[in-house]
Amino acid sequence: MSKYTIGVDYGTLSGRAVLVEVGSGNEIASVVFDYPHAVMDTALPSGKKLGLDWALQHPQDYIDVLTHTIPEVLKNSGIDARDVIGIGTDFTACTVLPVKDDGTPLCFLPAFADVPHAYVKLWKHHAAQDKANRLNEIAAARGEKWLQNYGGKISSEWLFPKLWQVLEEAPDVYAAMDHFVEAADWIIWQLTGVQTRNSCCAGYKAMYNKTTGYPEKAFFKALDPRLENVIEEKLSCPVTALGQRAGSLTAAMAQKLGLTPGIAIAIGNVDAHVCVPAVGIDAPGQMLAIMGTSTCHMMMGTAEYQVPGMCGVVQDGIMPGFAGYEAGQSCVGDHFAWFVDNCCPASYYEAAKAKGENIHQYLTDLAQKQKVGEHGLVALDWWNGNRSVLVDVDLTGMMLGMTLQTKPEDMYRALIESTAYGTRMIIENYRESGVAVEGFYASGGISQKNPMMMQIYADVLNMDIKIAGSAQGPALGSAIFASVAAGSAAGGYDDVFAAARDMGKVKDTVYRPNPENAKAYDQLFAEYRVLHDYFGRGANDVMKRLKAIKAQA
Amino acid sequence: MSKYTIGVDYGTLSGRAVLVEVGSGNEIASVVFDYPHAVMDTALPSGKKLGLDWALQHPQDYIDVLTHTIPEVLKNSGIDARDVIGIGTDFTACTVLPVKDDGTPLCFLPAFADVPHAYVKLWKHHAAQDKANRLNEIAAARGEKWLQNYGGKISSEWLFPKLWQVLEEAPDVYAAMDHFVEAADWIIWQLTGVQTRNSCCAGYKAMYNKTTGYPEKAFFKALDPRLENVIEEKLSCPVTALGQRAGSLTAAMAQKLGLTPGIAIAIGNVDAHVCVPAVGIDAPGQMLAIMGTSTCHMMMGTAEYQVPGMCGVVQDGIMPGFAGYEAGQSCVGDHFAWFVDNCCPASYYEAAKAKGENIHQYLTDLAQKQKVGEHGLVALDWWNGNRSVLVDVDLTGMMLGMTLQTKPEDMYRALIESTAYGTRMIIENYRESGVAVEGFYASGGISQKNPMMMQIYADVLNMDIKIAGSAQGPALGSAIFASVAAGSAAGGYDDVFAAARDMGKVKDTVYRPNPENAKAYDQLFAEYRVLHDYFGRGANDVMKRLKAIKAQA
Repeated sequence: MSKYTIGVDYGTLSGRAVLVEVGSGNEIASVVFDYPHAVMDTALPSGKKLGLDWALQHPQDYIDVLTHTIPEVLKNSGIDARDVIGIGTDFTACTVLPVKDDGTPLCFLPAFADVPHAYVKLWKHHAAQDKANRLNEIAAARGEKWLQNYGGKISSEWLFPKLWQVLEEAPDVYAAMDHFVEAADWIIWQLTGVQTRNSCCAGYKAMYNKTTGYPEKAFFKALDPRLENVIEEKLSCPVTALGQRAGSLTAAMAQKLGLTPGIAIAIGNVDAHVCVPAVGIDAPGQMLAIMGTSTCHMMMGTAEYQVPGMCGVVQDGIMPGFAGYEAGQSCVGDHFAWFVDNCCPASYYEAAKAKGENIHQYLTDLAQKQKVGEHGLVALDWWNGNRSVLVDVDLTGMMLGMTLQTKPEDMYRALIESTAYGTRMIIENYRESGVAVEGFYASGGISQKNPMMMQIYADVLNMDIKIAGSAQGPALGSAIFASVAAGSAAGGYDDVFAAARDMGKVKDTVYRPNPENAKAYDQLFAEYRVLHDYFGRGANDVMKRLKAIKAQA
Repeated sequence: MSKYTIGVDYGTLSGRAVLVEVGSGNEIASVVFDYPHAVMDTALPSGKKLGLDWALQHPQDYIDVLTHTIPEVLKNSGIDARDVIGIGTDFTACTVLPVKDDGTPLCFLPAFADVPHAYVKLWKHHAAQDKANRLNEIAAARGEKWLQNYGGKISSEWLFPKLWQVLEEAPDVYAAMDHFVEAADWIIWQLTGVQTRNSCCAGYKAMYNKTTGYPEKAFFKALDPRLENVIEEKLSCPVTALGQRAGSLTAAMAQKLGLTPGIAIAIGNVDAHVCVPAVGIDAPGQMLAIMGTSTCHMMMGTAEYQVPGMCGVVQDGIMPGFAGYEAGQSCVGDHFAWFVDNCCPASYYEAAKAKGENIHQYLTDLAQKQKVGEHGLVALDWWNGNRSVLVDVDLTGMMLGMTLQTKPEDMYRALIESTAYGTRMIIENYRESGVAVEGFYASGGISQKNPMMMQIYADVLNMDIKIAGSAQGPALGSAIFASVAAGSAAGGYDDVFAAARDMGKVKDTVYRPNPENAKAYDQLFAEYRVLHDYFGRGANDVMKRLKAIKAQA
């Protein structure tokens, strides 16, 4: 008799539930629900205006995802709901909200319904940049060692800049909240009735370290004396490693969802990190690149090395027992979207239309015919700054080698290659820091849709590339963690690595490097690297000076 | 009673005669005649195939220009042909042909009618590049001092590489020719019956120096022993300075053209150089930029300085009594043509069409609204290499500063600015070499059509820019020289400077630098200069290495 788990993936605009067969990893049914409030970036539901760079969400939407998708996914699957043994979830992060001791979001209280700071701050809420800047300065001045676990820089997207913004701009909200929690953990609280904090969010977004804990009181006091006891006052819940059971489904929630009370609920997780077991990775040194508008690079390592320019290294941050390494490229698919909107001539759109292709496919067809180096171009993939390994949002794009014979497909291919070089920089940076990178997996839209790009990555990295077998990687990963939370006694697994091996999936197609192309790309990557270091490491800060001139103009 | 001269401008595809009133410089009538054979770059009229990079012309076409345009321009003007006191001409250069002692082109002889090397080699015949390379190597190895008068490099477009190609590939043609002459001088020979060689072509294209003459025999012998006596054997005619009378119109030609026999014929000249008096320049230190697909920079100086990266410095090379300096940018208007063909999206074409504007005007309107530095970009204007001051065809384009917010008009404006920075590099290079640049004039299509670009040049150069008053600058310049050849006794001038002051023309509009913009551009030019030197002077030869990789691919 088959058992099932449900993975629920909370994205930026919608939530998706996928019902998965334990053991095979077969995805039986899938239902998506769009958040009714979507992203609130100009006003609250009341009409109250928000500031520049704000991005809020409404926590009721997250509950609505559960009540809309789970009954429907059960119905669509045709299985007996009693065979569902657990639920796992993953969330965008750092997406945080202030709550009372019983888990009630402040924004649910009439007194705070019209207060922006009482709502969920979505990951891309960027209005705390000044707090992040001050936090980084103070941490650097104090020589805080944990700073190097985050490539030397904390992002404005993370928990403490956001919390500090609440304290400064809405001290009443700060005073009224009992906890400032990740939405990833809040949804688990709603399912289990018990508060938990997952090691992934705590480690990557709240500067928590398994050995040393959170930063010390003196650091928080240096930010603002009112923050001295912030951990006891607002983040008092202990941290639980990924792979654990957070608790059991409450009777009330079981009734709403049509499930059995008491089934296992996995500890909260993050959308990118949870993809790792979904491709079957069960060991360190295997990198997963989640490729979309931007790329996240996830990998486990055997120890917590301080690698320059990472987004973070967190013990138990991806799978339990290993250091989880995260790096990123802030502009990947976005390059190509920008290119077709701004640089691609009408004749190409017409030709694509005549062939019945979209413009990306048309450009890809043309670019694919080229030999390595034939276009004569090299670009720096920094249209949206550089996340890893330079951690510098003020870097900008560069392209070089254009002649009067240069065609749009040449530039398009050069942009693709530049993102592959960026990935190779990340990999070489790990290797130079003593962290092995032995395998490469790709998931996300680009990995599914663009074989030429995947082949270029294989050639540039000189590594085989395996492709995620599921287009719903996060939900599948959550379902895997759910089966581990349920345990073997209930028909699940006791070990997430075994569950990943069984239920994780890759496609049959593996992109293997062409030795001749790989050799040619070695030459071109050497050029990229020289330019990367020249413009990125201070030899010529022209990009920053141009940005400063632009800001003045 | 008014007197008139006729200026005939020989371009790449057609010849134009303009009838001009002496004194006022008024252009009374103008007639164009397209060369029947145009440019022969794939085959001879017989069908005989030509090699790669060949470009030939038929000398009969040049005669046909005279017989078609001069009678018609006389008729259209309504003047009495007896009031025409002289003819001046200008030509593309180096455009050369092998002739017999009486001036008959070898290709007119039945024995050579089917021999490609017997025809005119047009300026853009590029099939002698290997000869130019060897010539440069040998000249450099021998430490030939004249090499520095040409920025250290002889172009494959010039006379000796082309002549050497004839010797190597068609020794019978070489043996049969009595002279290898510039078309600029050959047409004068046809008008006067007497061979002359003008100082402009001899100096800029045949390494002739007024003080030291041609390169010494030992140099030519080092190229090929058969070339030891090339000057006596093929270039024996003495050199005459610009501004002189070459001779008088023959009776036979007068009859064909409908003019008075014996009127003055000016010494031959070159299309770019002859534009200088046409804008009224009568003194050193006044630069004229002839701006089209590429830009030529013409200027007189008081002495022959060796300025790095020039195209040439030639005594009497522009106007008599001064050193003529020539520099150039190999890609100016071509950048914008490339951009709109390859980088400009359909939506922009549609919006331009809706406004009833061409795409260049539409982009210009958008770019014009920007403050200096607002786009955050800087580019190196090397899409077609760098002629001055780096003299390096293997350099390629670069653009830097792009973000996901970068728009087509941003890049378009950055390209315009990069060409202005390139001009400023040329000017600063002169100044650093001790050659004063005190005034700036612009002629050519761009100067007439693009006020925004002219204002950007004024701001970048921090100089007033005067604009040519005639759209037919070369023909007007030739008419000015014709009036000097005729002399005051015939109703013309005895002094080309006086003729230039009277007959040369600029528009009333002068582009004056905006002090605030000029200051902002100083900052941006400093960035350009660092990148120019980094990529152009050997610190990072990535552009050359990419070209080499491209050539292999």
